Amino acid sequence: GRAQDTREYDAIESQAGQVIIAGFGRFGQIVGRVLRARRIGFTALDANPGNIDFIRRFGSVVYYGDASRLDMLRAAGAESARVFVLAIDDVDASLRTAEIVRTQFPHLHLLARARNRQHAFRLMEMGVQVIVRETYASSLELAQSVIEALGESRAAARSTVARFRDHDEETLQRQFEVRDDDSKLIATTTEAARQLETLFEADAREPASGSGPG
Amino acid sequence: GRAQDTREYDAIESQAGQVIIAGFGRFGQIVGRVLRARRIGFTALDANPGNIDFIRRFGSVVYYGDASRLDMLRAAGAESARVFVLAIDDVDASLRTAEIVRTQFPHLHLLARARNRQHAFRLMEMGVQVIVRETYASSLELAQSVIEALGESRAAARSTVARFRDHDEETLQRQFEVRDDDSKLIATTTEAARQLETLFEADAREPASGSGPG
Repeated sequence: GRAQDTREYDAIESQAGQVIIAGFGRFGQIVGRVLRARRIGFTALDANPGNIDFIRRFGSVVYYGDASRLDMLRAAGAESARVFVLAIDDVDASLRTAEIVRTQFPHLHLLARARNRQHAFRLMEMGVQVIVRETYASSLELAQSVIEALGESRAAARSTVARFRDHDEETLQRQFEVRDDDSKLIATTTEAARQLETLFEADAREPASGSGPG
Repeated sequence: GRAQDTREYDAIESQAGQVIIAGFGRFGQIVGRVLRARRIGFTALDANPGNIDFIRRFGSVVYYGDASRLDMLRAAGAESARVFVLAIDDVDASLRTAEIVRTQFPHLHLLARARNRQHAFRLMEMGVQVIVRETYASSLELAQSVIEALGESRAAARSTVARFRDHDEETLQRQFEVRDDDSKLIATTTEAARQLETLFEADAREPASGSGPG
């Protein structure tokens, strides 16, 4: 049955939050828990009543509603809030919500979860200020653990990952510029991988370069 | 059509890798790219030919096959490899693969991606050494950016998140111990949230405590 489709959206009583979190699944919940620990008020919106009921069992407050609807955003206090966290996992719903927040509430500082690189590109086009690819940081942490498991020091593993990350973020920007040209996108990606290897090889030749502890 | 079901699995030619990466979607690919940058050999396995073909276009080597099959694991060099990265997104396939790796190749250092807390618990039961919840680190990074967007310094935001994380990892361990008792699990979770608030409140009362820079 599709009982969830027949439940009416919640009415939102308090508009006290400085922060709105749209999407309160495993990603948005962590953000909410960090804020709650610091007693920073937030209003959460989620279109899935399953998420809501689960959270209410654990004593948190969150509202059931579609975050891409202007009336819901108004009711959630978008006019007086300062920060909007876009933590919706569905790409289309995320982009719809980003669009309405950008056009209707341009004062909001907009931070977004992205499913992947393509989703990140779309959010970048809309001028979203902070974009975090959802599995990116965890995959880098795991990569660091692999390098440690192979016998390198934690400091060396950490430095490898930090350098990879800097390079990858520059690459993302360059890929963004050629995102509509498939052959240029592939060339940029291949070239970036080659550059990165060269960077690490230069390190291997000069192990005691001037990047020691300050 | 389900053309992907009729394609035969690839034969694996080289067994040179010290690392096997099972699951080469957006998570496994980042791990692979970090290793590649450092010229650490790895063999990747993925059951989805779409992932494989996409990666081959970008010049990487990866094999099409089911990582929970003993013959595939042998062909991928599981007997001589040192590290096994379990980066499969599907929970059942992940657990099936963890089980066979644990029992058939106990010498492998096993590091895993977990979809969520429940998946993490199952992997912990199997004794997996390193478990990374797939969206966890990115959601913490976004939480840090929210706190900065509200006007706190980067150092303060980073410290909040680090403290949250330490506390949450302890909580995960405590939740693991009561995972089969629903009411104890809820009590542990509620209690942990309260503890965390108390911890931050104590900080707020003593802003200049002895945790300054060394």
